[in-house]
Amino acid sequence: MWTFDEIKDDLKKRLKETRFKHTLGVVDTSLKLSKYYGYSSEKASFAALLHDCGKLKDQEMMDNAVNKYPIVIDSFMLENKQLIHAPLGEAIARKRYGVLDEDILQAIRNHTVGNINMSKLDKIIYISDIIEPSRTFDNIDYLRKLALKDLDEACIACMDNTIRFLIMKHWMIDPNVIEARNTCIQNLKNKEK
Amino acid sequence: MWTFDEIKDDLKKRLKETRFKHTLGVVDTSLKLSKYYGYSSEKASFAALLHDCGKLKDQEMMDNAVNKYPIVIDSFMLENKQLIHAPLGEAIARKRYGVLDEDILQAIRNHTVGNINMSKLDKIIYISDIIEPSRTFDNIDYLRKLALKDLDEACIACMDNTIRFLIMKHWMIDPNVIEARNTCIQNLKNKEK
Repeated sequence: MWTFDEIKDDLKKRLKETRFKHTLGVVDTSLKLSKYYGYSSEKASFAALLHDCGKLKDQEMMDNAVNKYPIVIDSFMLENKQLIHAPLGEAIARKRYGVLDEDILQAIRNHTVGNINMSKLDKIIYISDIIEPSRTFDNIDYLRKLALKDLDEACIACMDNTIRFLIMKHWMIDPNVIEARNTCIQNLKNKEK
Repeated sequence: MWTFDEIKDDLKKRLKETRFKHTLGVVDTSLKLSKYYGYSSEKASFAALLHDCGKLKDQEMMDNAVNKYPIVIDSFMLENKQLIHAPLGEAIARKRYGVLDEDILQAIRNHTVGNINMSKLDKIIYISDIIEPSRTFDNIDYLRKLALKDLDEACIACMDNTIRFLIMKHWMIDPNVIEARNTCIQNLKNKEK
C-alpha cells in the first residue's frame, strides 16, 4: 500500500486544484472528528484523503479510469453521473493505492449518498466532506456545531441539506440517502430509549 | 360490488367527520382531473371515495380491521403506522366493498407515498388527496395550478412538499416516495426529448 504522502503527492497531480484543497480540508476535519469520537485517526485520514480519488480532473481521465477499473454502475448512476466517482474511488483506492482495509473502502464508497447502517468512519467522512473549512453555505455553522454533538444528528442534518438542495434543483434523489437518513433517525430513537 | 352511494353512506359512519369531508373533496378534485386528462370519471371517483377507507375513526376499529383483513406490514410501516391505512384501505375495498378493479385497488395502495411507475389514476388520486378544496397550506395555489399543467410535474411538486414537511418534522421518509419522484422526473425528461 502507498504511504499517506505518496497518495497525497499523486492526488495533487490527478485532481483539480480546488478538489485537492477540499480533500486536505476533509482530512483535517476527519482528524478532528475521529479524535473527538475516539476513532482511529490513521484510518480516518486515509479515508478522507482518498474519498474523492475517483473525481479525476478531466473527462478523459475519468473515462480511462472507468475502463481500467471495472465498477458496477446502476441505472440511477447512469442518469446521475456525478455519483460514479464514489464506486470508482473505491476501485482506484483498492487497485492503484493498494488499500486493503474494508472500512476505508466502504467509507469511500458511501461518502456521496450514505447507506443503510453507516459505520462510525462512514459518518465521519460523510460529515467531514460537507463541513470542511473551504465549504460555504447558509447553515454551515449549525452543521459544524452539530458535528460535535452527535454523529447521527449531524448526518441527518447534512442529508437534509442535500435533499433540500436536490429538491430546489428539481434533480433526482438517490434512495440510498433516504435509507441512510432513516437508519440515523432510528439510531437516535434507540439512543433515547 | 357496492354502489358508489352505498359505499359513501357506509364511510360516513366509519370515518371521522373531517376525514369524510376530505374524502368528498378528493372525489370532486379527482373528477375534475380525470375529465381534464381524459381518464374514466367512474374509476377516478371510486378510487377517490375509497382512498382513505382504511383510516377508520378510532383505534379500536383500526385494530379490528388489521386483524380482519390480513395485510403485509413492512418494517418501515411498523415504525410509521400512519402509512398502514393505504394497504389496509386496499384490503377493505377488496373484501368489504367487493372492488375487483386492480387499477382502483392500486391507486388506493399508492395514494400515501406513491410508487415506481405510477399509473394515470395513481397520479390523479395522489394529487387530489393533497390539493382538494379543504386543504390549506402555503403553496397550495401553486400546486392546484400545476395539477392542470402536467400530472408528473404536479406529482413531483406534491412529493417535494411532503418531503420538506417530513424533513421539518425530523421524521423518516418512505423510500417509495423517492422512487416515485425519480420516475416522474424521468418521465418529464423523456417528454422533453
